[in-house]
Amino acid sequence: MEEVCDIGNIKFSAVSAGIKGEGLDLGLALFEIPFSFIGLYTRNRIKASHIHYAKKLEGRKIRALFVTSGCANAATGKEGIEDLKRLARMISERTSLKEDEILFASTGVIGKRLPIEKIADSIPFLVDNADPSKLEDFAYAMMTTDTYPKVLKRTFSGKKTYSILGVAKGAGMINPKLATMLCFLFTDYPGKREVLVNPFRAYCRESFEKITVDSETSTNDTVMLFFPEGEIDEKAYSIFTETLKDLMRELALLIVRDGEGATKVIHIKVNGAKTKMAAQEIARRIARSTLVKCAFFGNDPNWGRIIAAVGDTDITIRPERISIKIEGMEVAKGGVETPFDEDELKRKLTSKEVEVEIDLGLGKASYEIYTTDLTYDYVKINASYRS
Amino acid sequence: MEEVCDIGNIKFSAVSAGIKGEGLDLGLALFEIPFSFIGLYTRNRIKASHIHYAKKLEGRKIRALFVTSGCANAATGKEGIEDLKRLARMISERTSLKEDEILFASTGVIGKRLPIEKIADSIPFLVDNADPSKLEDFAYAMMTTDTYPKVLKRTFSGKKTYSILGVAKGAGMINPKLATMLCFLFTDYPGKREVLVNPFRAYCRESFEKITVDSETSTNDTVMLFFPEGEIDEKAYSIFTETLKDLMRELALLIVRDGEGATKVIHIKVNGAKTKMAAQEIARRIARSTLVKCAFFGNDPNWGRIIAAVGDTDITIRPERISIKIEGMEVAKGGVETPFDEDELKRKLTSKEVEVEIDLGLGKASYEIYTTDLTYDYVKINASYRS
Repeated sequence: MEEVCDIGNIKFSAVSAGIKGEGLDLGLALFEIPFSFIGLYTRNRIKASHIHYAKKLEGRKIRALFVTSGCANAATGKEGIEDLKRLARMISERTSLKEDEILFASTGVIGKRLPIEKIADSIPFLVDNADPSKLEDFAYAMMTTDTYPKVLKRTFSGKKTYSILGVAKGAGMINPKLATMLCFLFTDYPGKREVLVNPFRAYCRESFEKITVDSETSTNDTVMLFFPEGEIDEKAYSIFTETLKDLMRELALLIVRDGEGATKVIHIKVNGAKTKMAAQEIARRIARSTLVKCAFFGNDPNWGRIIAAVGDTDITIRPERISIKIEGMEVAKGGVETPFDEDELKRKLTSKEVEVEIDLGLGKASYEIYTTDLTYDYVKINASYRS
Repeated sequence: MEEVCDIGNIKFSAVSAGIKGEGLDLGLALFEIPFSFIGLYTRNRIKASHIHYAKKLEGRKIRALFVTSGCANAATGKEGIEDLKRLARMISERTSLKEDEILFASTGVIGKRLPIEKIADSIPFLVDNADPSKLEDFAYAMMTTDTYPKVLKRTFSGKKTYSILGVAKGAGMINPKLATMLCFLFTDYPGKREVLVNPFRAYCRESFEKITVDSETSTNDTVMLFFPEGEIDEKAYSIFTETLKDLMRELALLIVRDGEGATKVIHIKVNGAKTKMAAQEIARRIARSTLVKCAFFGNDPNWGRIIAAVGDTDITIRPERISIKIEGMEVAKGGVETPFDEDELKRKLTSKEVEVEIDLGLGKASYEIYTTDLTYDYVKINASYRS
C-alpha cells in the first residue's frame, strides 16, 4: 500500500453502522469548503437510488459524500430515493451540513432498502472523527467482495503543489460502459465543470470502460471527480489531466486485478479492425466468453475458443486473415493453427498477467480490454454472496 | 433410456478410430437408398469445414453421414475442407459409396486437423458392421463432454407406420442461434425439400434456439433432417410435423439438462414485452448472466441480479412496472421487493428444474428460454478440456 498524503480541506472517516453485518460499511468524505463534482453513472436501465439523487444535485456544490456498502439501494423504487431525502434531512439536523450539500453512493445487494435509522445514528460520530489522513478507512467502508482497498495518490506542481486522491471498489458485476463501480477522485486543483466534463468522460473511456470481470453492468456504477471550483492553473493543466488519466487507469487495473476469484488478468488486444467500434465489439465478446476465461484459468492456450468468440458477433470478418498471439507467441495465422511450443506457452500462462493479441487483417483500428479468468472461486463467491 | 426402434433402410455403426484418445469417436449413418437432407448451421462466422462441405451438397441425395468427435475440424482453413474431399475419395475407394453421396459432421477441439488416415482405415469395418439397431452406438460416437447419449424415437401413422429417430449431442458451447450443436433426425416419412425447409426452420427456432448453456455459439452447430424424397403422405402430414416438432423440443431439453456441470435447468420466461424480439433479447441477457446462474447454483433467490440483467440491454423498460416470480412465488412487484418466504423459496430452488417469470408490464409479447446454472464443474470441465 502506497502512503496516502492528505488534501487539507477534505476529511475522511468510516464506521461500522451495521449495514452489512460486520466491518466498516459507512464512509464519509467531508469537504471543509464547498466542492464541485462531476459524476458519470451506469448505463444499466435499472439505476441505484443514489444515481437518481445525485443527478438532481449536478452543477451544485457539495460538502459531504456518504458511502454505504452491503446494500445497493437499487431496485427500491421511489422509496429508495425518499430514503435518501429523509437521510439528508436527518443528517442536516444532527450536523452543520445543509440537505442539498450532501451526496450519497451505495454498493451491495440489489433490491434491499437502506437501514436509514442505523445510518443516521452513526453520523455525528463520523463527522466528529473525520480527518484528512483517514482515506484508507473510507476505502475499507466501500468494500464488498474486494480483497484489498484501492487507494492511489499523485502530486504534481503548478503555482503550488496539488494532489489527486483516488479511491475505488470492485470486484464483481464489473463491466462498466460509461462509468465504473464506485470510484471517487478528489483533488485540490481548482477547476470548472464545463472545462473538465469532456476530458473526464474521455479518461473514463480509456480506463474503467476497458475493464470487465464478468460482463455484468452494475446498477450502481458511479465515478465522481471532486474539485474546488476556481480559476484553472493553466501552467499545471496538462500535468493535471495527464495525472488524472494515469490515476484512473491504474485504479481500473486495481479493480480488475482484484476481480472476484481471479487468478490472473487477461489483456485482450484486437488489432487490424476496420473501425474502433468493430475492434471493441470483438474484444468485448472475447472478454465475456466463459470458455475462453476457463481455459486461461487452466493455463490452456486454447486459441480455438478465442477464434470462435471472434466469429460470434455481427462484425464481418475474413477467417483466413486472422492471426492470434498469446504471450507474444504466434498460435494461429491465416485463420489456422501455426506450430508453437505448447509446453512453453502453458508455462508462460501461469503468469499473473497474460497478453492476447488478435489481428483481424482488415484495417488499422484497434481496441484493448482487460478481463479476468473464470475460476472456482468466482462461482463460490457468487453462489453464496447473500447468505 | 427409451428403447430405440429401427428404420429398416438406415443402418448405424460406430468405432473407436483414435481421434479422441479413447471411446467411440467415429459414427456412421448408412442409407440403403438415397435420402434427401435439410441442414441448418451455426451463425458463427467461423464455420467448421463440414458445414462448408455440406452446403455444396445441398439439394443432392446422400447415402452416408460420418460423424467424428474429439476434433471439430473448424478454423482449419482450406486444408480442413480438402481433408474432407480426400476422405470422401478414400471412402469411395474402399466402399460402394460415391464421393458426392457422403456427408460429414464433426465436434470437438477447434483448430486441429482431422486424422484422416486413421478415419479412412476404420471405414470398411464401420460399413460392414452397420445395423439398423445401432443408433445408440452412433450417439455415443458423437459425445464430447456429454454425460449420456441423447436418442429419442417416435412413431406415427399414415398410409403406414412411420418413425422419426433423433440423436443429438451437447453439452458446452451451447447457444444455438439458427441451429444447434450436432443433431440428426432420420425419418422414413417421405418428403420434399421445398415443402419441409420452412417448417423445419421454424421448429428449430422453437427448440434448439431456446436453449443456452453458456451463451457460446459454436463453430460446428449443425442440425440435419434426413428423409426419403417422395410423394408426401397428406393424411399423416400434420401428425408428422407435430411429432417432429415435439421430438426436436425434447432433444433440445435433453441437451440443456446435460449442460456442462449443470445441477439444474432454469426456465426463463419474459412476459409483457412490446415485441417478441424485445422479450427475447432480455431473456437471453438473463440467461447469459454469470451472476444469476451462480445464484441459482447456490439456491439463492437473488432477484436483484435478475432485474439488473433486465436493465442491461438496449430495450427500453419501465423499472416500476417490472414484477418477478421465482417458482411461482412473487419476489418483486412494481420494480421493488415484495415480502416472500425466503426459506421456503430456497428449498424450492433445490429442484432440478426451476421457473423464473419476469413481467415487464409493457405489452403482450413473450419469449422463453432454457438455461443452466453455473457451477464448479463447468469451470473444472472447461479449465481442463483439452488436456
